[in-house]
Amino acid sequence: MHSPGNVSVQDRPDPTIEKPTDAIIRIAATCVCGSDLWPYRGANDVDNAPMGHEYVGYVQEVGADVRTVKVGDFVVGSFMASDNTCEICKAGYQSRCVHVVGMGGVGTQAEYARIPWADGTLVATPEPPAEDLIPSYLAASDVLGTGWFAADAAQVRPGKTVAVVGDGAVGLLGVLAAQQMGAERIIAMSRHADRQALAREFGATDIVAERGDEGVAAIREMTGGLGAHSVIEAVGTQESMMQAVRSTRAGGHVGFVGVSHDVELPGNKLFYSAVHLHGGPAPVRRFLPDLMDRIANRMIDPGKVFDMRIPLEQAADAYRAMDQREAIKVLLTV
Amino acid sequence: MHSPGNVSVQDRPDPTIEKPTDAIIRIAATCVCGSDLWPYRGANDVDNAPMGHEYVGYVQEVGADVRTVKVGDFVVGSFMASDNTCEICKAGYQSRCVHVVGMGGVGTQAEYARIPWADGTLVATPEPPAEDLIPSYLAASDVLGTGWFAADAAQVRPGKTVAVVGDGAVGLLGVLAAQQMGAERIIAMSRHADRQALAREFGATDIVAERGDEGVAAIREMTGGLGAHSVIEAVGTQESMMQAVRSTRAGGHVGFVGVSHDVELPGNKLFYSAVHLHGGPAPVRRFLPDLMDRIANRMIDPGKVFDMRIPLEQAADAYRAMDQREAIKVLLTV
Repeated sequence: MHSPGNVSVQDRPDPTIEKPTDAIIRIAATCVCGSDLWPYRGANDVDNAPMGHEYVGYVQEVGADVRTVKVGDFVVGSFMASDNTCEICKAGYQSRCVHVVGMGGVGTQAEYARIPWADGTLVATPEPPAEDLIPSYLAASDVLGTGWFAADAAQVRPGKTVAVVGDGAVGLLGVLAAQQMGAERIIAMSRHADRQALAREFGATDIVAERGDEGVAAIREMTGGLGAHSVIEAVGTQESMMQAVRSTRAGGHVGFVGVSHDVELPGNKLFYSAVHLHGGPAPVRRFLPDLMDRIANRMIDPGKVFDMRIPLEQAADAYRAMDQREAIKVLLTV
Repeated sequence: MHSPGNVSVQDRPDPTIEKPTDAIIRIAATCVCGSDLWPYRGANDVDNAPMGHEYVGYVQEVGADVRTVKVGDFVVGSFMASDNTCEICKAGYQSRCVHVVGMGGVGTQAEYARIPWADGTLVATPEPPAEDLIPSYLAASDVLGTGWFAADAAQVRPGKTVAVVGDGAVGLLGVLAAQQMGAERIIAMSRHADRQALAREFGATDIVAERGDEGVAAIREMTGGLGAHSVIEAVGTQESMMQAVRSTRAGGHVGFVGVSHDVELPGNKLFYSAVHLHGGPAPVRRFLPDLMDRIANRMIDPGKVFDMRIPLEQAADAYRAMDQREAIKVLLTV
């Protein structure tokens, strides 16, 4: 991305092993993330940056210290590379590993990528997957793992009522996660017919089209005036955060994964809400083995969030389509 | 309290049973709360308000529907009256009961008080307590219960490192709670020698006198650069909240119980901190039976936070002493 709104595909040198813990992968599929739209729209600075942090692919080469993946393996990795051995990783927060490397800086919208901390970051499938499962594995790399973390952070449990603020890929996969975790009622907040339909397919039992005060009132009315037990926030704005907090009952849980932009949470509102608040960059690596099993067993089909598929060479069109909301999420074939 | 800084003790009509779920108690002891200092100092509006929300006493009269306490019982109640039967109460958030009544509006710095929802609010001792235990039971009514909730919200567990921001009665009793919950290391943040001494008596293993950036740096240095597992926030200012968040490791837990004043939490800092945040008005009622057992068995002595004791008639002196930090907490004998 040269500057906001200006994306092109160019030749760059092939990546090479820099540290003995690195692996080089040949990327099979990658995609554009909702968070890539922040710089595209000028909300974050950008200056000739490599782009992309979601990826699946085949191991091409490994450093001398790599033990758990080997050349030829099909692998899925998190958008944050982690050693998976430090105290923070062991506690399940690999996205805040003491040696974390953000894959956005590496740039996985590419043919090849260097993966730092390969053993701690990548998970291999037992054998190369069926072609039709590749979109789902790609979703696991970020949006599924992030929606799953949000549902986990919101303590979704069997019998609970869950509300989901945000109908992008992460919000929709938050719905799927809540369904898998046994929620009794899942209320998707969405104003777009196509996204409402996918939310229902993923397990939403109710749709609320209202936002802000009216959205909060609708959720409260549906929950005996109390609010939802668990609320997933997958946008990252002031309005969406307060909508999430205010839609949650006292003692309930908000899981927030929308990357915060210009959000200031009023302390007194948070205090008297008595909710639990937890979120941040999702530790996708914590959930990857489980998610990959569910995908392999065809228990879930998160790849459905990709409603457009085009070659990597046309990445600029992918950004445009997502920016214009012509697509929920675009898969780039490599 | 007539206006900021202006407190007097006056005759008011004796309270009477207004609803069949009420009880009237003859107050044995009451006290001044740190939160009473906000209006005293002009931070909250006040206009001839009855004051006080902490109390222990003897049941004088009960309404027709009261079943669990009887005339003559020695009782402890929370600073928030609750029915203890609604869905929110059953989930352990009695301070946000759908029928909640704040006892501050009733005013328990008095000889008698009407307690709404007596069955859901009051807990009786099996027999009248020894005189020397009364301060500890009084502490259970708010500051002990609040410090306990903060430690619970911060998920203090055996083997964990806990930091406590704030050295008022609640912070000090947060130290005691953390000790009872089996924390391995308890770092009290305090600049006052008398409070440091009491913190150590309650179980603090370390003292950090620095605040703000320096305080955060000290906690990080003591925890291998990671931050504490659990942090108790018991002040309620912007500085103390951010000190708490920044002293907590990724994936760790902040329990905040200082009543928020002019706090705005930056969303992006909270997002990247990856901490859990939970707090609010403590559901003291959830913890009362356990806390009262520990007091009866002399396992804990939270009454030590009262370092001054004067008759109710001299309440104005109690406010002055706490405002001037001449006393940590003043017990008013009735």
